[in-house]
Amino acid sequence: MHQTADLKIPTLADVRQAHEKIKGSIHRTPVLTNRQVDERAGCKVFLKCENFQKVGAFKFRGACHAVFSIPEEEANKGVATHSSGNHAQAIALAAKMRQIPAYIVMPENSPEVKKRAVKGYGAEITFCESNQQARESTLEEVVEETGSTFIHPYNDSRIIAGQGTSALELLEDYPALDIILAPVGGGGLASGTAITAAGMKPEVKVIGCEPEIADDAWLSLKTGKLQPSRNTQTVADGLRTGLGELTFTCLQEHLHSIVTVSEEEIIEAMRFVWERMKIIIEASGAVPVAALFNDKIKDVEEKKVGIIITGGNVDFDNLPWNN
Amino acid sequence: MHQTADLKIPTLADVRQAHEKIKGSIHRTPVLTNRQVDERAGCKVFLKCENFQKVGAFKFRGACHAVFSIPEEEANKGVATHSSGNHAQAIALAAKMRQIPAYIVMPENSPEVKKRAVKGYGAEITFCESNQQARESTLEEVVEETGSTFIHPYNDSRIIAGQGTSALELLEDYPALDIILAPVGGGGLASGTAITAAGMKPEVKVIGCEPEIADDAWLSLKTGKLQPSRNTQTVADGLRTGLGELTFTCLQEHLHSIVTVSEEEIIEAMRFVWERMKIIIEASGAVPVAALFNDKIKDVEEKKVGIIITGGNVDFDNLPWNN
Repeated sequence: MHQTADLKIPTLADVRQAHEKIKGSIHRTPVLTNRQVDERAGCKVFLKCENFQKVGAFKFRGACHAVFSIPEEEANKGVATHSSGNHAQAIALAAKMRQIPAYIVMPENSPEVKKRAVKGYGAEITFCESNQQARESTLEEVVEETGSTFIHPYNDSRIIAGQGTSALELLEDYPALDIILAPVGGGGLASGTAITAAGMKPEVKVIGCEPEIADDAWLSLKTGKLQPSRNTQTVADGLRTGLGELTFTCLQEHLHSIVTVSEEEIIEAMRFVWERMKIIIEASGAVPVAALFNDKIKDVEEKKVGIIITGGNVDFDNLPWNN
Repeated sequence: MHQTADLKIPTLADVRQAHEKIKGSIHRTPVLTNRQVDERAGCKVFLKCENFQKVGAFKFRGACHAVFSIPEEEANKGVATHSSGNHAQAIALAAKMRQIPAYIVMPENSPEVKKRAVKGYGAEITFCESNQQARESTLEEVVEETGSTFIHPYNDSRIIAGQGTSALELLEDYPALDIILAPVGGGGLASGTAITAAGMKPEVKVIGCEPEIADDAWLSLKTGKLQPSRNTQTVADGLRTGLGELTFTCLQEHLHSIVTVSEEEIIEAMRFVWERMKIIIEASGAVPVAALFNDKIKDVEEKKVGIIITGGNVDFDNLPWNN
């Protein structure tokens, strides 16, 4: 398969270059603070709001960087990926910006709203059955046929460097941060965040946050062996994925630790932010907030804690507190 | 009853003074823009986001100004109002800031979350039956007993001047606006907005927006006679109230016109803003957005349209699209 995945561990210099390349195409998202959140957390909290990013999620940073990094000749044949979520929309929009084709493989049973969004960015969708094998084989066919370039959602140096640009902006705006929290799904965001913080300010602790029922990254770090995803139905649907080899290595080298939270804690934290801050954050983005609210992060008193809010893509017909 | 309501029509100078008095105590709320909203509306839209105001609504501006304006001796006996909504919370917080007592009369069947919020600001609640007469007679008793000062939610010059500070900030930030839209409930916000715009930039059209099934202000302006509220259950629960004598006069003098929208249009506009902008706006705040999205505002092409978003206080257990 035509895959140009770059599998070296990115550095802060790569993140800075990524930022230069994409900064005219992404939103520099705001960092929001809230007195009630601070009171609840017992420290000063700085939310880096990727829910206000294009396509509603940090995923656009990495996708944009990867799509913009492909050499001209390959790029003209287009880019491809399989995803039912934010990565698909992100690739589709980035390809539209570069004016190259995007081929997205999606399970037939994906929500209509997601199909519409991907189509809305002008991507070509190929539907497949809803299992990993069907996704991969269908993607392989699409790539063979079109000569397009597969972009992995996280196990790729360019993606990781792109995701790191969120922490780069956060630390540029608030260099006094002591701790940064990021959720861990496939590990692209957590890797980029940890690498960026380690380069800019080594004394910052970057702590990963996972749902208890999807704690494969926690277990991977603990055992020193890459563990598969637990195939759970955590409400934090962006975090159901397992790590890749590259993100696992990045986290082993740069992450301080991983903490886990319950489903109830995630839902409660999500609703707290909606009610008090009047902003929409998705369940995956609420995971680090839940960790902070439930004393999973130690010694935060008097500390300045940054949180990367992953996104705001929520199905308003199926809110977690109504289920 | 001990009422110091000031019933003169406020001027831009009053609004400016109000702003000086409260600006250290309120949030200067952000003005947000969004490409998808612009595309849908067919013009440039500037949302003045009072959902990010303290207590989650513009009401804090007027309440703060009224509470801060009461002479010392009277103020020490406290302030009182009857409300089950944002005005009660706004008065409670403003009184807390001034360190004077607040007495709030609320219907027994008010939502728990609202009771808790008012108590959380340290106000003393007196419960009453859920009808206008019970509210007023209970309030009268409370005021007699405590010597506190009643603050009307909208039919008061100080309240109107306070609400006008939102448009003041909006026009300071975006002096090129051609049109400003504000919803009309009791008329405090619409009056303050119209007076402020007329003073700062007379060529700006201020247009009021109402639910079709709560169009008493539209009818009042049309007939030239103050019409009672229609006692409807519009989803825009902040707009169920009728005008007061003072707000009616203000609107007659300064408002360009009033347009109305259907319940479906309100709900659709509210959800559109949630989905695309990732911010939580209440149904009342979506009314002017709905007017713009459904061509109720004429000749907007190439225009710059400001909208006062009233607030973001929503019951997440009862979202309008789930009912």
